[in-house]
Amino acid sequence: MGDVTQAEAEQDQLLSILRDELYVAVVSDVLDAGGLLEQAMDARLRPLAPGMRLVGRAHTVMTADVYVRPEEPYGPEIEAVDALRPGDVMVASTSRSERTCFWGELLSTAAVARGASGCAIDGHTRDALRIIDMGFPVFATGFRPVDSSSRSMVVGHGSPVEVGGVVVNPGDIIFGDYDGIVVIPPDRLADVVTAAHNKVTSENSSREMLQAGATLRQVYDRYGVL
Amino acid sequence: MGDVTQAEAEQDQLLSILRDELYVAVVSDVLDAGGLLEQAMDARLRPLAPGMRLVGRAHTVMTADVYVRPEEPYGPEIEAVDALRPGDVMVASTSRSERTCFWGELLSTAAVARGASGCAIDGHTRDALRIIDMGFPVFATGFRPVDSSSRSMVVGHGSPVEVGGVVVNPGDIIFGDYDGIVVIPPDRLADVVTAAHNKVTSENSSREMLQAGATLRQVYDRYGVL
Amino acid sequence: MGDVTQAEAEQDQLLSILRDELYVAVVSDVLDAGGLLEQAMDARLRPLAPGMRLVGRAHTVMTADVYVRPEEPYGPEIEAVDALRPGDVMVASTSRSERTCFWGELLSTAAVARGASGCAIDGHTRDALRIIDMGFPVFATGFRPVDSSSRSMVVGHGSPVEVGGVVVNPGDIIFGDYDGIVVIPPDRLADVVTAAHNKVTSENSSREMLQAGATLRQVYDRYGVL
Amino acid sequence: MGDVTQAEAEQDQLLSILRDELYVAVVSDVLDAGGLLEQAMDARLRPLAPGMRLVGRAHTVMTADVYVRPEEPYGPEIEAVDALRPGDVMVASTSRSERTCFWGELLSTAAVARGASGCAIDGHTRDALRIIDMGFPVFATGFRPVDSSSRSMVVGHGSPVEVGGVVVNPGDIIFGDYDGIVVIPPDRLADVVTAAHNKVTSENSSREMLQAGATLRQVYDRYGVL
Amino acid sequence: MGDVTQAEAEQDQLLSILRDELYVAVVSDVLDAGGLLEQAMDARLRPLAPGMRLVGRAHTVMTADVYVRPEEPYGPEIEAVDALRPGDVMVASTSRSERTCFWGELLSTAAVARGASGCAIDGHTRDALRIIDMGFPVFATGFRPVDSSSRSMVVGHGSPVEVGGVVVNPGDIIFGDYDGIVVIPPDRLADVVTAAHNKVTSENSSREMLQAGATLRQVYDRYGVL
Amino acid sequence: MGDVTQAEAEQDQLLSILRDELYVAVVSDVLDAGGLLEQAMDARLRPLAPGMRLVGRAHTVMTADVYVRPEEPYGPEIEAVDALRPGDVMVASTSRSERTCFWGELLSTAAVARGASGCAIDGHTRDALRIIDMGFPVFATGFRPVDSSSRSMVVGHGSPVEVGGVVVNPGDIIFGDYDGIVVIPPDRLADVVTAAHNKVTSENSSREMLQAGATLRQVYDRYGVL
Repeated sequence: MGDVTQAEAEQDQLLSILRDELYVAVVSDVLDAGGLLEQAMDARLRPLAPGMRLVGRAHTVMTADVYVRPEEPYGPEIEAVDALRPGDVMVASTSRSERTCFWGELLSTAAVARGASGCAIDGHTRDALRIIDMGFPVFATGFRPVDSSSRSMVVGHGSPVEVGGVVVNPGDIIFGDYDGIVVIPPDRLADVVTAAHNKVTSENSSREMLQAGATLRQVYDRYGVL
Repeated sequence: MGDVTQAEAEQDQLLSILRDELYVAVVSDVLDAGGLLEQAMDARLRPLAPGMRLVGRAHTVMTADVYVRPEEPYGPEIEAVDALRPGDVMVASTSRSERTCFWGELLSTAAVARGASGCAIDGHTRDALRIIDMGFPVFATGFRPVDSSSRSMVVGHGSPVEVGGVVVNPGDIIFGDYDGIVVIPPDRLADVVTAAHNKVTSENSSREMLQAGATLRQVYDRYGVL
Repeated sequence: MGDVTQAEAEQDQLLSILRDELYVAVVSDVLDAGGLLEQAMDARLRPLAPGMRLVGRAHTVMTADVYVRPEEPYGPEIEAVDALRPGDVMVASTSRSERTCFWGELLSTAAVARGASGCAIDGHTRDALRIIDMGFPVFATGFRPVDSSSRSMVVGHGSPVEVGGVVVNPGDIIFGDYDGIVVIPPDRLADVVTAAHNKVTSENSSREMLQAGATLRQVYDRYGVL
Repeated sequence: MGDVTQAEAEQDQLLSILRDELYVAVVSDVLDAGGLLEQAMDARLRPLAPGMRLVGRAHTVMTADVYVRPEEPYGPEIEAVDALRPGDVMVASTSRSERTCFWGELLSTAAVARGASGCAIDGHTRDALRIIDMGFPVFATGFRPVDSSSRSMVVGHGSPVEVGGVVVNPGDIIFGDYDGIVVIPPDRLADVVTAAHNKVTSENSSREMLQAGATLRQVYDRYGVL
Repeated sequence: MGDVTQAEAEQDQLLSILRDELYVAVVSDVLDAGGLLEQAMDARLRPLAPGMRLVGRAHTVMTADVYVRPEEPYGPEIEAVDALRPGDVMVASTSRSERTCFWGELLSTAAVARGASGCAIDGHTRDALRIIDMGFPVFATGFRPVDSSSRSMVVGHGSPVEVGGVVVNPGDIIFGDYDGIVVIPPDRLADVVTAAHNKVTSENSSREMLQAGATLRQVYDRYGVL
Repeated sequence: MGDVTQAEAEQDQLLSILRDELYVAVVSDVLDAGGLLEQAMDARLRPLAPGMRLVGRAHTVMTADVYVRPEEPYGPEIEAVDALRPGDVMVASTSRSERTCFWGELLSTAAVARGASGCAIDGHTRDALRIIDMGFPVFATGFRPVDSSSRSMVVGHGSPVEVGGVVVNPGDIIFGDYDGIVVIPPDRLADVVTAAHNKVTSENSSREMLQAGATLRQVYDRYGVL
């Protein structure tokens, strides 16, 4: 499974809290409050199944469309996948290609074997039902049954990429659920987790007061959250 | 829950029939037959869950994107939600913003508390799984985890809005199911319900005759419906 | 049910293998390997339900939008549906109309009665939940509750059409599952089925080796498939 | 040149006034004031040259994309062009095809020979520089060098068509200049011309007052036009 | 013409240099070098004529589409235009409306009378040929012949707006030519002008060396600019 | 200026005929007649000026968007430009990026110095007015004032690329005018030139007969061209 540093171990604890106790919308609100307003990927990336939760460190990769099959089409892709470390989320830009398909079941199997925790693609996947059966969290913009080898090529991994309208740096924290995906700068993670916990408490109080018949005006004046 | 007028009470009976006995496609056909050809919202608005049925009187609201957080970002939104009356459907235009998110769980909770029966947004929602759990019918164009306060502002409610390609006036009847949403002028509601009932009967006969092996030509010549 | 030729009977056996033992992604790979790189429809066409499998011979139809109800709006449509033969898949182009709706429950019922095995529409359907209940495989780009009669007209059937970015000829083999739809030239069907079986075996070996912890590089060097 | 009826001759006088004394923006305002708010084609249709003015009676035609060259590809197109009468404007829908090209120099030459006064296409043209040299007013959405015969087919002429977002009926009055195209119902033409003349007078007064330094508020309070 | 402050007078001198001696591409490069990478509006905004140069201080305005004519449709628009000061550029967001038209000849006349130096609209204009004749620099995304009063409403002026993908604050420096529009933060203007002058000199040397036959490699190694 | 082979010299003679005596539309018709139906680039690529004629051998290049400035951002771009040979047309894919800008005046100057005859970009250019003054034929999809170095990177040259919907191989013949661009396989060039000459003659006869008042039906029956 590779080495895990002390810093990663501490980060992993925070990631567990994201996964088990929080949700993306409340984390997005906390990022907003901290002045980070452009952290949510756009609505085109959707989870393959409603319950999928995507939590981990970004491992970035970028593809470009090609029109002849390269001599070694899979070389850089294999390298990118074999470089995954435990807790990584593959974050892939395809330049929004409607033609290729970046991900599938065998890559998911390889990623699981490396300890990766999910995949977010600004592009298509295939083998979707079998990936759902595996329980591996994949967020994509759609489905295509095709192989990538004659259609696109990995042109780099480990550099910043634009995915869903957000520039993602390697090591950024990725957090996704049914509402979408946010990107958390790693040095903000601890503060974000704390603040999100507090906001959940206020939201619970607001919800109860609304259920008891209060107007939104009364609730907002009291708790200051919507 | 506020006052319900006599006219509203009668209308509510017709709304119950829509909800319990009819479906959107047959009502759309009846509107077509009455010369009302532009009543169906376009395919971008989808229900959060397959079984959701949206029935009620339109309560319209319009938002515009902003790029600084207003001093009182939620003021007009709170006003719009607190103005909901029993049987209302919130019908919201966001100018098709891909950036903001108009709706969420707390607003759903507030809307339920006011007696509202659903929400149709030409824009995004969040807290989708919890809204599904609540059973509150929401139709939207997609999902974004973000709060609206730094991204858009309610600029008015109670005026005509364009949602899904249809101009909706306050008080228009909204009827949605898995096939989409139609907007029924309130003064046509009684006639529409009657005619839709009749058309359902013809369709049932057509279906049986087709199942028995008749060609479409034979069935159409007999019942005149497809 | 009409006559089935000897050639069709042999083809039907191959279609059964597609339906019961293969999946679209592996067939797409085999078509790629045979130099047929443009056989996969684009990602806009989706099945109404995850488990739907679309297998059959293309019966093509094309519609055009209209702005007055023709005198006999359904004539050519009825003709196109009544011409379906056992094992046919209705393959319909609407010129990507966002306005009309080509398919619905009664047409599905008629198609089932003729022995058709499914429908692929570059356009919208309605009555979706009832079609799902029927178990009739329909792939479409979305949902609209409207009838076609004042909105579009069948302008021909039995000619090549463009659906999902692929030109489909009558008699082409259509194969769709949750990953998408591929179009197989009928004279390649036997070879495709054989080669796809072989590729499934290699993929199974790759999967096991990956699950056992091998890197993607090791697996690819051994089996040569991703 | 064919016969010209008495009604057409009277209409031709009004068309001359449109061409020589008025402009599209003021006519659009007059249509608005008369409650006709959906008469302006959308911004995609542009004149081939800035000074082109399009004035005449709509002669409608509709094409559909094809994927094999029909046996007689030009038959219905020839019929549609040869049916042009003096003062007609060819108004063509291609279902917004990005693939075919409906118009060109030889068709322009044929149209001029029939006395037609221009062409408005929701689609592409070719031979653009030579058509500009001819001085024949063509409005189109772009340029493609291709012939239509293997790409699209005329499927009808003389029926209502949707062009630039407006449904155009045969005989509707088409008026276009550098700002765009409006469609005038023929029975409103006389009133529209009169009212447009009056509005031009008010606009001239407003312009002079603004040039003299008045605020927009002062000018609007006095003349009531912007 | 209103008062001009000392700071504005100094700024006006820098604006003259932009207008008379520099061009947008070199200023964009200087902004890039200073780490400001998101200052160029996107390619949709085009000048009405090739030689138009847009230079001034942003006066922002935002519109929203409406579907009934407001009681006083022009009120906020008149206010926004009458608030223009010498050297201002009207910078207007229409939420990318394809339906309304924000600008025209009378507003241009009023703006000129107030001393405004141009207009940049993320939306449509009309009266384009007459505005070109006036020599008033207008950049827009297209042309529509319609009036705004039944289609959109000014919902605010003097707040940040998003135009062409750039958030523009009131007082930002707007600089446009045939290549596009950049937005310069006012406190960077002096430095930008100086650095742009220097870059022009290097580019001139590069150009001469290339014309003399040097390779791009040789030139870039020597001057470090492309 | 580099070496020119005998084959290239013969090809250059044919290219001169294309440039001086033929036009793109007639060449497109000849390619159609030869069964090559997908040779015309789509309508998004436009010449910077109406009279520009683009004729030469394709020198292909591909860029990908980046989100950090590479250490040597211009390296592969310089290499690609310095590799241009006399008679080459730079044919560039940017994956339809709306963000970067591939071409400009200095690159045009360098290309001219290498003997290149033009540039076709599926993406943006800058310095457009100065390139027009140079008389260097550039076809692009729009204008952006920005430099590429922080926005995109050349990822290869001399491989097949997709530009304007056509896959272009190095050495393919590029022919563009105001109607668009076609791609001619080099081994078909001689035949295409001959056949195009013949078609021009038929078109001239058709034109004269139409001008003399014949119907399109009469002309088509006689000459068989439209």
